[in-house]
Amino acid sequence: MDNEELVGFARRVGLFWPAAEIYGGAAGLYDYGHLGATIKRRWEDLWIAYFIEQNENYFLIDGSNMLPEKPLVASGHASRFNDILVSCKKCKTFYRADVLLGELGIKINEGADEKEIEKAIKEHGVRCPKDKGELGEPKAFNMMIDVSLGPEKKEKGYLRPETAQSVYLNFDREFQLLRKRLPLGLAIIGRAYRNEISPRQGLYRMRELIQAELQIFFDPEKWDLKPKERKPMNVVTYKTGKQTKMTPAELVKDGYPEFYVRHMEIIHHFYTGIIGVPEERFRFFEKGGADKAFYNKVHMDIEIDVRSWNGFREVGGLHYRGDYDLTSHSKGANKDLSVSVDGKRFMPNVLELSFGVDRNIWMLIDVFYKKDGERDVLGIPGFLSQYDAAVFPLQKDDALEKKASELYDSLAKEFRIAYDTSGSIGKRYARMDEIGTPYCITIDFDTVDSKSKDHGKVTVRKRDDRSQVRVSFDELRKMIAGSRAIHGIGMI
Amino acid sequence: MDNEELVGFARRVGLFWPAAEIYGGAAGLYDYGHLGATIKRRWEDLWIAYFIEQNENYFLIDGSNMLPEKPLVASGHASRFNDILVSCKKCKTFYRADVLLGELGIKINEGADEKEIEKAIKEHGVRCPKDKGELGEPKAFNMMIDVSLGPEKKEKGYLRPETAQSVYLNFDREFQLLRKRLPLGLAIIGRAYRNEISPRQGLYRMRELIQAELQIFFDPEKWDLKPKERKPMNVVTYKTGKQTKMTPAELVKDGYPEFYVRHMEIIHHFYTGIIGVPEERFRFFEKGGADKAFYNKVHMDIEIDVRSWNGFREVGGLHYRGDYDLTSHSKGANKDLSVSVDGKRFMPNVLELSFGVDRNIWMLIDVFYKKDGERDVLGIPGFLSQYDAAVFPLQKDDALEKKASELYDSLAKEFRIAYDTSGSIGKRYARMDEIGTPYCITIDFDTVDSKSKDHGKVTVRKRDDRSQVRVSFDELRKMIAGSRAIHGIGMI
Repeated sequence: MDNEELVGFARRVGLFWPAAEIYGGAAGLYDYGHLGATIKRRWEDLWIAYFIEQNENYFLIDGSNMLPEKPLVASGHASRFNDILVSCKKCKTFYRADVLLGELGIKINEGADEKEIEKAIKEHGVRCPKDKGELGEPKAFNMMIDVSLGPEKKEKGYLRPETAQSVYLNFDREFQLLRKRLPLGLAIIGRAYRNEISPRQGLYRMRELIQAELQIFFDPEKWDLKPKERKPMNVVTYKTGKQTKMTPAELVKDGYPEFYVRHMEIIHHFYTGIIGVPEERFRFFEKGGADKAFYNKVHMDIEIDVRSWNGFREVGGLHYRGDYDLTSHSKGANKDLSVSVDGKRFMPNVLELSFGVDRNIWMLIDVFYKKDGERDVLGIPGFLSQYDAAVFPLQKDDALEKKASELYDSLAKEFRIAYDTSGSIGKRYARMDEIGTPYCITIDFDTVDSKSKDHGKVTVRKRDDRSQVRVSFDELRKMIAGSRAIHGIGMI
Repeated sequence: MDNEELVGFARRVGLFWPAAEIYGGAAGLYDYGHLGATIKRRWEDLWIAYFIEQNENYFLIDGSNMLPEKPLVASGHASRFNDILVSCKKCKTFYRADVLLGELGIKINEGADEKEIEKAIKEHGVRCPKDKGELGEPKAFNMMIDVSLGPEKKEKGYLRPETAQSVYLNFDREFQLLRKRLPLGLAIIGRAYRNEISPRQGLYRMRELIQAELQIFFDPEKWDLKPKERKPMNVVTYKTGKQTKMTPAELVKDGYPEFYVRHMEIIHHFYTGIIGVPEERFRFFEKGGADKAFYNKVHMDIEIDVRSWNGFREVGGLHYRGDYDLTSHSKGANKDLSVSVDGKRFMPNVLELSFGVDRNIWMLIDVFYKKDGERDVLGIPGFLSQYDAAVFPLQKDDALEKKASELYDSLAKEFRIAYDTSGSIGKRYARMDEIGTPYCITIDFDTVDSKSKDHGKVTVRKRDDRSQVRVSFDELRKMIAGSRAIHGIGMI
């Protein structure tokens, strides 16, 4: 489905739409409807179960979204978290220079400065796309959103530009509390804020985004973590610039650290093994040279091929950040954040697993939505869907409704169950298909007829292939439990 | 435990502490450590299970924290969400007038305006508590935190002062999507922001707070919801100003709407029946007159008696908001938000169940922490604790460690299990007691000795009374499942 169709579908089934829509919306701000908010919380639960809870020294923490000025000066965000803007001298429209040049097919590095941009604009004779006006001088524009607190608004601060900073600020206390062991993983799921100038890209470039980030602090001389499998993964390395299938062993041979390659495997299994993204729609894309943040030793984007954007789009990243962050805050806070483990004092390195939650929700819709004849089907895995199953009485009838309601009460103790009595069975199926409910359970006259050979059995109709089976209550319970369970979580 | 002890305990076990602590902290901003973040997420899961998932037309949604200016002008926040400030003419210190007067024992209404404050200051000859300087003229100070977006920062907005606004802005779309049925419940768990001038009160007066709010939209002529039980509850009504035990029937007789009293029961059961707050530490406190927001028809605070604040403190509220919110946004957005149900057109009324998540976490610690001799015990219910159980090998020994590790692997598939091998058993018990782990399971030599009568059995030591029982693996599994289950959730 294309971008417009996805946005329309998202609105129609209760996934997401622009914030403050009744006031005409707000650029770069989105709200999640009842379906989106629930799928989002399920995705977060999955992320916590897979990335955090499988390791006994990894933990979820939470941090305030507003931060004082100092830490964001120390982290470099106050001086370097910039976009280069150009504006049209005639119509005064502002553009993000890299976006404008990119749309014209002019290649520019992600870290390009004002001078490089100016050079590119002159070389290619770029003018305003709206009225062909001349473009002004490119200027660095800090993307952080500032806040002023206190009675005279003199206490300056920022909305955090990434959740990672809240983790670095808490590393020292948590390291002390958690008995000074490395590797230590600290994760946050929360919001980050960026004054994006061209935020009109659905959930892909937002002014307020949700991140799920895990920072692993470790001793680079001691993290003895090796890749386990030989499964090849799609990778675009910076060196070749081409997408190829590479095994973990080949990546290690090419010089990527073993702990890094091991985490590529873990992430690859999360998407292809657990969530079920087709192998060919998943890849790592390495950033290097000026496209890579200077503090990253290795930087790969996690990309999913989405039809709605005509190709691969970033949904996260795996960043070997070295010791830049703790070193910066040691200086900024004037507090030594190095650690002493086994008689050695050193600054821990950081491996960051970063995921854009909104982009992951978008990706899920793109990958798992299918049109099947007239049917809209959201074929997401059962453990991510809003309901595990739906219960319907076949038609208005006291005996059927009584039985259906009993079954609902019994199942609802263990599972998340929808109950629907309104409209034809076909309509009720359609409503469940489009929100991704894996099973629809119908109570019919045979279910309640003690003389029928199908007495006590119900019809289960499956979302994905519309096949129907007749099962007992016990079998039903097993089916639902199986669809709800997360498979393969321990297999990595 | 007193306030200082609670704060110290919270820091020591990983619950919460000021944000950006290594930079000296930030007033009114807190971070949650690994224990606090996990208990918070469990509390949220409980809240969703109890207040949302038991009703098939209630849903969780999510909304952006930044909002454009217009809706917050329409809601009245831009003009009326004010504190009255006074400052010392000598030392320039600012005070929230109601807090300053309150601390001096001078009673003032919550909604008092500048003139009333000025009168009270003159009457009582109030001066600056620091240097006895004269106080300047009281001034209204808007508590919203503003943000400026866009390339020239001309797009004005605010961080939302309450999550409720995100719900009102989405009511119309959700009502349409969810097949136009009332009552419709829409809930958000998220952050709200207030430029508090005197934010130095732990988790009770923060500049960034977490709310869990459920807005129920209904037809006041048709919501046929009656109280079910006769259990008396502690209530301070506005009329009497005294705390008394009242049954639901008595409250209805006193004129409180039946649907309102029913929700008092639901909230009362949540705290006393599910979470286990002692009856005498729970009460409703009615606000009336100038203490009540003008749009509320009935307003009761939910209060818990906390030792750390020497008495009852608000943890939430039950607000019958009438149709103020939808009417305001109908005008502001120039879009009729009234509904047509069963041939009648009307503006839905709103019943708001509002909870301060941070205050609820604080309350949990206050109510459930106990000192037992030398032991620090966080006696929270099993379904809120970070771990369901901990597994220990008795001592360093290959056979014990192998068996313990097998048991850990097996239990960790179903439950959240800690594993600890370091230090004496006593030390390991102490670590688990203070973070609230209900059971500690020890593998000893009898467990692995095939000749022992206790072969295959483990010792389970209970957090609350330190009693020990010897059980088989099957019994163990049942014990843990029982402690983890939420009891009484369907009993209301």
